[in-house]
Amino acid sequence: MNFSSDNWAGATASVMEALNRHSTGLASAYGADPLTADVTRTFSAIFERDVSVYFVATGTAANALALSAFARPGGAVFCHSDSHIQVDECGCPEFLTGGEKLVPINGADGKITADALRNAMKAFPEGVVHHGQVASVSITQSTECGTVYTLDEIRAIKAAADERGIPLHMDGARFASALVSLGVTPAEMTWMAGVDVLSFGATKNGCWCAEAVVFFNPEQAKGFEYFRKRAGHLFSKSRFVAAQFEGYFADDSWLGSAAHANEMAQRLAEGIRRTGGRTAWPVEANEVFPILPQEKVSRLREAGAMFYEWPADGLPEGSRPSGEEVCLRLVANFATTPEDVDCFLELL
Amino acid sequence: MNFSSDNWAGATASVMEALNRHSTGLASAYGADPLTADVTRTFSAIFERDVSVYFVATGTAANALALSAFARPGGAVFCHSDSHIQVDECGCPEFLTGGEKLVPINGADGKITADALRNAMKAFPEGVVHHGQVASVSITQSTECGTVYTLDEIRAIKAAADERGIPLHMDGARFASALVSLGVTPAEMTWMAGVDVLSFGATKNGCWCAEAVVFFNPEQAKGFEYFRKRAGHLFSKSRFVAAQFEGYFADDSWLGSAAHANEMAQRLAEGIRRTGGRTAWPVEANEVFPILPQEKVSRLREAGAMFYEWPADGLPEGSRPSGEEVCLRLVANFATTPEDVDCFLELL
Amino acid sequence: MNFSSDNWAGATASVMEALNRHSTGLASAYGADPLTADVTRTFSAIFERDVSVYFVATGTAANALALSAFARPGGAVFCHSDSHIQVDECGCPEFLTGGEKLVPINGADGKITADALRNAMKAFPEGVVHHGQVASVSITQSTECGTVYTLDEIRAIKAAADERGIPLHMDGARFASALVSLGVTPAEMTWMAGVDVLSFGATKNGCWCAEAVVFFNPEQAKGFEYFRKRAGHLFSKSRFVAAQFEGYFADDSWLGSAAHANEMAQRLAEGIRRTGGRTAWPVEANEVFPILPQEKVSRLREAGAMFYEWPADGLPEGSRPSGEEVCLRLVANFATTPEDVDCFLELL
Amino acid sequence: MNFSSDNWAGATASVMEALNRHSTGLASAYGADPLTADVTRTFSAIFERDVSVYFVATGTAANALALSAFARPGGAVFCHSDSHIQVDECGCPEFLTGGEKLVPINGADGKITADALRNAMKAFPEGVVHHGQVASVSITQSTECGTVYTLDEIRAIKAAADERGIPLHMDGARFASALVSLGVTPAEMTWMAGVDVLSFGATKNGCWCAEAVVFFNPEQAKGFEYFRKRAGHLFSKSRFVAAQFEGYFADDSWLGSAAHANEMAQRLAEGIRRTGGRTAWPVEANEVFPILPQEKVSRLREAGAMFYEWPADGLPEGSRPSGEEVCLRLVANFATTPEDVDCFLELL
Repeated sequence: MNFSSDNWAGATASVMEALNRHSTGLASAYGADPLTADVTRTFSAIFERDVSVYFVATGTAANALALSAFARPGGAVFCHSDSHIQVDECGCPEFLTGGEKLVPINGADGKITADALRNAMKAFPEGVVHHGQVASVSITQSTECGTVYTLDEIRAIKAAADERGIPLHMDGARFASALVSLGVTPAEMTWMAGVDVLSFGATKNGCWCAEAVVFFNPEQAKGFEYFRKRAGHLFSKSRFVAAQFEGYFADDSWLGSAAHANEMAQRLAEGIRRTGGRTAWPVEANEVFPILPQEKVSRLREAGAMFYEWPADGLPEGSRPSGEEVCLRLVANFATTPEDVDCFLELL
Repeated sequence: MNFSSDNWAGATASVMEALNRHSTGLASAYGADPLTADVTRTFSAIFERDVSVYFVATGTAANALALSAFARPGGAVFCHSDSHIQVDECGCPEFLTGGEKLVPINGADGKITADALRNAMKAFPEGVVHHGQVASVSITQSTECGTVYTLDEIRAIKAAADERGIPLHMDGARFASALVSLGVTPAEMTWMAGVDVLSFGATKNGCWCAEAVVFFNPEQAKGFEYFRKRAGHLFSKSRFVAAQFEGYFADDSWLGSAAHANEMAQRLAEGIRRTGGRTAWPVEANEVFPILPQEKVSRLREAGAMFYEWPADGLPEGSRPSGEEVCLRLVANFATTPEDVDCFLELL
Repeated sequence: MNFSSDNWAGATASVMEALNRHSTGLASAYGADPLTADVTRTFSAIFERDVSVYFVATGTAANALALSAFARPGGAVFCHSDSHIQVDECGCPEFLTGGEKLVPINGADGKITADALRNAMKAFPEGVVHHGQVASVSITQSTECGTVYTLDEIRAIKAAADERGIPLHMDGARFASALVSLGVTPAEMTWMAGVDVLSFGATKNGCWCAEAVVFFNPEQAKGFEYFRKRAGHLFSKSRFVAAQFEGYFADDSWLGSAAHANEMAQRLAEGIRRTGGRTAWPVEANEVFPILPQEKVSRLREAGAMFYEWPADGLPEGSRPSGEEVCLRLVANFATTPEDVDCFLELL
Repeated sequence: MNFSSDNWAGATASVMEALNRHSTGLASAYGADPLTADVTRTFSAIFERDVSVYFVATGTAANALALSAFARPGGAVFCHSDSHIQVDECGCPEFLTGGEKLVPINGADGKITADALRNAMKAFPEGVVHHGQVASVSITQSTECGTVYTLDEIRAIKAAADERGIPLHMDGARFASALVSLGVTPAEMTWMAGVDVLSFGATKNGCWCAEAVVFFNPEQAKGFEYFRKRAGHLFSKSRFVAAQFEGYFADDSWLGSAAHANEMAQRLAEGIRRTGGRTAWPVEANEVFPILPQEKVSRLREAGAMFYEWPADGLPEGSRPSGEEVCLRLVANFATTPEDVDCFLELL
């Protein structure tokens, strides 16, 4: 009954097999090995387009480095108030972009809207040097609230971004869970909807450490290897990341893992609803945010259930937890079992 | 016959076993897991002192982040002209320290001397704001020339650093090879000789990706977790690095691997000498730098031997390669076999 | 009838006299001249304490450099949502602090409160590396809304800052106008109330270009000359800034200038009230923010009056400009004449 | 007899007149005033081309900001080992460029040669991420050794820079002295010879504080106002810098000042030669570097002469000061009188 986070999980069997398979022998360092080339081709196949792929150490690095490729002096990065880059990255985006300002935008269900973006960009009128300049916009898919942007929502945000000529970044730390939730293709959810650069996260969904920055336009990727190396994010034995991706993509196991985690989340959500509980946000990916009476939460903890409390201040009045309630975050992962879920629900 | 680099090798059996052993189950993320705690205790045991250990993604990051903890505005970092931080890190030290200046110091056999350091520091007199200020000194053990600082040499450099109140950093990308070469303890080669902070590299000697910044004084480590996170170097599934270290240290396998690589280097060196060849620098660790006639090198290449050419401009006149000669770098690693070596020597 | 900004004004006679007086002869460069020493002593006399004074080129630089002296990795700087550092400095604070995050706090009348600060700091709990860490708090005196913090308000903010161990910075671009408004001493409004470092602005109140960073605690000033020089803000002919300060302080002319500007603002405010108009915020310094019917504003413009429109979104509902109204900013300066004011009021 | 530095001088009469003339009245802030526009037109006239002109606070800022406009991750800036940006700017270029590496190049008479540049760039081969990438080259005119690049030398450096696609920056802290020394036009010495961006210094030659970054290609200037503002270098009362330039350029007074200073330097040099003395480098601008017996120097000091000692380690063996000798720097400025010089020579 451990729903603490998907990054508490280990590696899937398929990832471990690939790691073992490639653990011996000599191969070129720094990404010049054949396996890295292979995996890059797989990425291109998956995205139905020649993409530029750069492995980095963490999701935080992927986000910050992706944004740094589009940084401008006095630049503003627009993002949701609850986004990982704004709240959970210890200023890494600010640091790696050379001091850009993150401009938090409020929005229901962890999402920003095209109009809210337009409004936020107004504070940075073209050519007024004092206020700085618009630089990029970043969305998280699936979001920190366990919701998922629809393709239309992404397209609308892209349209707003285009009005000011800034690129659209997608933080895909939970890319796979959004993908299977929408039932669309990777291409549809990214470049076809206007995404310029993607943080492709595989760690939460079954790798040890496999994160990549993916550019859909080779022009925009130009020189990115220097950004990565300058931040200390070029692995020497790059093939060990490639190996993980090989195992991850093999037989679509990544989609299976994500589908399973989403399913477990639905099972949790339904169970909670059945007991008369409510969730802070719609359950669309692998995270569930129940609002529960404080005493129930204590009982769950005593029985050994593990999870984090979650701030729910962003909810509209009336939906927020009352004085006796608390909002939890329950995260399902590839290894969560129906038994874990049922055991938790029983306690409830 | 692949002597390209020790980072072309894969992982040792002992490292892979540990990775497999810890691949399943849930564990706290971001280094709060029991395995990371265990491994940190092992580090302290190895160094005979309570040390602060921070895993990071790469050796470049370890170096740059270690230096960033001691950065000052207008700061100067003293290092050898051929050092990795000066030549091979794409400005990562400059970037992560907020723009410090690396001051290259020439020196025989890839080493700086205490007096050369003293002399270089004179350009930064106390209190003269224009020239900036001394910030830190970095040495590489074993060096980029395959040589090893003696304990006396390290102590002398520390004494010079102390005269200006700056800390001593050791780039230990090949820490183990130096250790077994000198036949001293990790404590003797580090804090006992005056090292303040160490980049402890395990990747080249048999891990996939296991690098750590080690502080010997908890005061100096204060707040370092923020430097690491801000650069995107805090792994979420930190235990996968810890697992590698567990396997690395198990049964002193790390020392065995290093000893083997050094032995293979000696076998190479002796063979080269036997054929009347010479090396650019003494062979004291796992690297050999023969100076060979161009045509021999071509023959080796044709026969399938792999290696890099290496600049030897730093050699004193008379020792430098002549017009028909070229300097090679041959790197042995834990998996290099005597057969590899003998086959190479035979071709020679 | 030009109320555009106090930085549209030139220099006072007293400042020009001093500049002329010191325009010839040779003097040590980079602040080692006797005049700079003299003026520093004057600062200490004015603040009734030995202060460390650093001239810089602009108010923006003064703010950003002052904050940089207290920067931490992943650091958060707390400030009002409308503050100059947040809105008008093109990311200079973010850049010169190495990527700190500015955390905007809403608050009535352009001021933050101690409790709002406490609340904002909660998002940065001690020791949680993901969220970063508290670094400093900055207030503006007088504020961007033409209001003035009382000594009690400053003391309360300092108390909240002390609870988390962060320093208090005061942006004193309009320091003199606040000082004469409160009728207190420079010491009372700064270090006695808890201010650690002050951006002392003299440009808006009658100098050409005279801004200084003032530390009240020599320990905190240590090494600051390196921060300044590293940002290109150490003037070679430093005495020309010193000369301006000499003229500025002579015969308390700075207080006279500020008192005059404040008086003109009051004259404006009273006139507006007399015509039935209202102001967005209380008029406590040299700025007046009338909310006027659009058509009146057009008429003023046609008659040659000059001023900027000002966003008043921060006002509580009910007080905000209606659809037909607009908020203006009128800034009085040392050279504003009663005739200017009366002429403007007549048009109204 | 004060030859300490040209930045020990005050302002010329013509500069002071202009400052006084423009000291009153209201004018747009931040460079939108008519005087700044006027002066910009004068710059264009002087350079016979539409140039983009940006005032900044110091020569250090001008250099570092100019270079920052061309910065790349892992970028290398090539410059002379004795150049101001390398030795005297406290890491400002490294800081404002986001951590570029300055690559010092030795060269006779304070100059780099095209071939030395070519050779230095070899360490940064195209596409090898580890070593970083070439970013820009900077020359100083007149140099730190009081010498002047010929037009041919500049053109040759530009040709080498073009081979790798990097721009040529000129540090013109002593631009005027080089100009009158060569007897060429500003256009000839800059864009016609291949200079892309110029730090135009007027402070040393008679202003209080008037430095400008001048771009010769509007494309390259794009967005530069954000670099300047982000570093805190946009003056609010910009017209006070413009006024200085107006006075500086009026009636070619800047050329007169520079010619006078150069003449005084020649008078010094000839006098020294007459007494059998020698200079470290040819005297081509307003600086003289005599190598004198230690005891003579002591006598000069006792008699009240003021100057700095200067390192002359860069000289070829045989030319370097002997044990009993010392190298001095004597700087003439617009206000140096023949009597100053003769008095000094008499003492000699």
